[in-house]
Amino acid sequence: MKGEIVAVGTELLLGQIVNTNARYLAGSLARLGIDIYYQTVVGDNRERLVDTLRQALRRSGLVVTCGGLGPTEDDLTRQAVADSLGVGLKADEDVRKMVEDYCGRRHPAGVCNHSQWFLPEGARPLRNDNGSAPGFILEARGKFIVCLPGPPRELEPMFERHVVPFLADLPGRTPMIIHSRVIHLCGIGEAAAEERIRDLLSSTNPSIAPYARPGQVDLRITVKASSAEEARRLIAPLEEEVRTRFDLHAFGADGETLPSVIGEALRLKGLTLSLAESCTGGSIGWAITDVEGSSDYFLFDAVVYANETKERVLGVPAELLGRWGAVSRQTAVAMAEGVRRVAGSDLAVSVTGIAGPAGGTPDKPVGTVFFGLAVPEGTWWRVSTFFGDRDTVRQWAVQEALTFLYFYLKQPADPGGKRVSRP
Amino acid sequence: MKGEIVAVGTELLLGQIVNTNARYLAGSLARLGIDIYYQTVVGDNRERLVDTLRQALRRSGLVVTCGGLGPTEDDLTRQAVADSLGVGLKADEDVRKMVEDYCGRRHPAGVCNHSQWFLPEGARPLRNDNGSAPGFILEARGKFIVCLPGPPRELEPMFERHVVPFLADLPGRTPMIIHSRVIHLCGIGEAAAEERIRDLLSSTNPSIAPYARPGQVDLRITVKASSAEEARRLIAPLEEEVRTRFDLHAFGADGETLPSVIGEALRLKGLTLSLAESCTGGSIGWAITDVEGSSDYFLFDAVVYANETKERVLGVPAELLGRWGAVSRQTAVAMAEGVRRVAGSDLAVSVTGIAGPAGGTPDKPVGTVFFGLAVPEGTWWRVSTFFGDRDTVRQWAVQEALTFLYFYLKQPADPGGKRVSRP
Repeated sequence: MKGEIVAVGTELLLGQIVNTNARYLAGSLARLGIDIYYQTVVGDNRERLVDTLRQALRRSGLVVTCGGLGPTEDDLTRQAVADSLGVGLKADEDVRKMVEDYCGRRHPAGVCNHSQWFLPEGARPLRNDNGSAPGFILEARGKFIVCLPGPPRELEPMFERHVVPFLADLPGRTPMIIHSRVIHLCGIGEAAAEERIRDLLSSTNPSIAPYARPGQVDLRITVKASSAEEARRLIAPLEEEVRTRFDLHAFGADGETLPSVIGEALRLKGLTLSLAESCTGGSIGWAITDVEGSSDYFLFDAVVYANETKERVLGVPAELLGRWGAVSRQTAVAMAEGVRRVAGSDLAVSVTGIAGPAGGTPDKPVGTVFFGLAVPEGTWWRVSTFFGDRDTVRQWAVQEALTFLYFYLKQPADPGGKRVSRP
Repeated sequence: MKGEIVAVGTELLLGQIVNTNARYLAGSLARLGIDIYYQTVVGDNRERLVDTLRQALRRSGLVVTCGGLGPTEDDLTRQAVADSLGVGLKADEDVRKMVEDYCGRRHPAGVCNHSQWFLPEGARPLRNDNGSAPGFILEARGKFIVCLPGPPRELEPMFERHVVPFLADLPGRTPMIIHSRVIHLCGIGEAAAEERIRDLLSSTNPSIAPYARPGQVDLRITVKASSAEEARRLIAPLEEEVRTRFDLHAFGADGETLPSVIGEALRLKGLTLSLAESCTGGSIGWAITDVEGSSDYFLFDAVVYANETKERVLGVPAELLGRWGAVSRQTAVAMAEGVRRVAGSDLAVSVTGIAGPAGGTPDKPVGTVFFGLAVPEGTWWRVSTFFGDRDTVRQWAVQEALTFLYFYLKQPADPGGKRVSRP
């Protein structure tokens, strides 16, 4: 089946936001074996939207739109779809209930816009669990239009829950799917990772390609196959080869993240964790608690921005702070040991550094970050200098702290960094 | 002048990369006063690319393409542009020198593909300082095609250096720019916000449109003008009207964020802040410390996930936790007062709730979040029920906590919520 994507929104045309929905939908539809030949962005203009939809319906069997389903007068998708098919809009009782249910729970006063109850005639509404705008599916002359809301956090669950099953059941679909599996690496840079698989990069079906982000390299293995089972069978040997080459650096695949893998290991070993963050300002805690059920092993994150708080809450000696400074291996070690004691946790990780743009010195330039790891076996520390703006430095620091902890959980005798030797 | 953007590349259609070029080009062209009505993505397919270019040339005076200029057989833009205009390809001596020069610098062996020397007849080459693929500009029948390479680090400098001056000099262009200003609102929902400016929504030049995200509504005021100064003059009265209608809800504009506005107010009043987070897991701390210089007023964020830590670190009485539960107004109040005492800060905000998906009860469903605010004048609390998945609930909770603090800073006598009365 041939499909195309129509994104609606003047904010896209003006370059005010990036069209991440197109990427999400394109990737998802490709995995379902639907060939996407065109993506179009059109503004909140009824005539141009209708023209675009008519053209899309002429050349493709499936048109997926995103955006323009909200309650305001700018939201024209419902009307334009109706126009493009020559049908009217009709109040839908199910939709009215969905919208009222959603609005009632959020705004008891119930200021909802009636326009959202109206769908093109023949449309089948799709429930929105994360917003007030229902989506819908419409079949007309053997072609299909799927209309989804613009916000990704509304669009993505709706697509997964309602559109994927619908498309999978369509008659006459060629059973060819594109399947990807992504292997995640930590503790290794992009160039080094690519060097290690240079000979595999020319492979086709499955093919493999590296993508880098702060502190993590992803290797995407992609295959075209007639079934999910065949895809998995084709991918397996290459995945095994990659995992062998990267050993512990290959920490997970697909939806697994460093925090989820760390969480599993903590749960398995029955260990608890606490954190002490300075320059990362709570984001390691955020990452750890992004995993459901993290309250089982995560006790405490002390975001100690002020020196005084480092002393008061974690018992970092004022003398130590005065002598070595807040950004030092001594402070990192004292923070990790301090929060481990205060929280009574088995493990503790600390971060202190200079995120910038101000605060650097010749000795400790912007991007210098110290990490501490206090565990039953002793305390380790390490230091890195990251390059980039404030946000980039912070992202790298979060990933590096998680990598430190991950390597400890995998090989407790040698988590990396240097061990603190006590007199 | 009307323009459109055509992005070429199968990797875009498959959803393997995000179309950031479209955003960059759309924003840049809008600032030059060129109206973009369509963006299209088309794959590496000669026929579909020619069709798309012909359609674009029919409806727009300027077509900007990106991608498909590389040396491989997949790179079809040169050929397709020639086809769409009915002209041939011609070797260009300047281009040959540019390509050889670039390749010689990078690959002394000189692995260059001759196809890159060939441009559609009449094309004027554009130097590429960061890659081997030259771009080009072509005029045909009073319309213009600008073809740029796909990698952003090649496209953006080429656009700035060669295309901006070219477009600025085009004859017959009205020197018109599009200018936007975004007013940020907190503490008010999208529907209520729209209700309050319904009469303004039909305004044109400047026009105004609302955009919602968790806990915040943005009102974008857009104007077309002949200069930045004129744009500001046209926007000012509408902005003032909007600010009057929303009063304190209008907390900032453009690059201002709730954390940056809160930071300014704290600095101005010489107040310090601490936080106690449960379900938001450190993300309020992350938001606060995202502002440069936040160490001046931000002392401590206690991310107390475990009940035991709430007791040990913040002194929340075990008896209170046992009687009312960790997710209760009593715990929120004790957390805020506890962290204020421990950190020795002037102000403290606390959050405790059920982010889900598990953990809800009939009394306290998933999404129930309690907030505490401890300040010199006393302690306030409030409760909200947010609707959505774990991530959405957490985002709403962060924004609501910041809103609570913001309203306190703006009107300390009435920050919203309920005041705790002491016996």
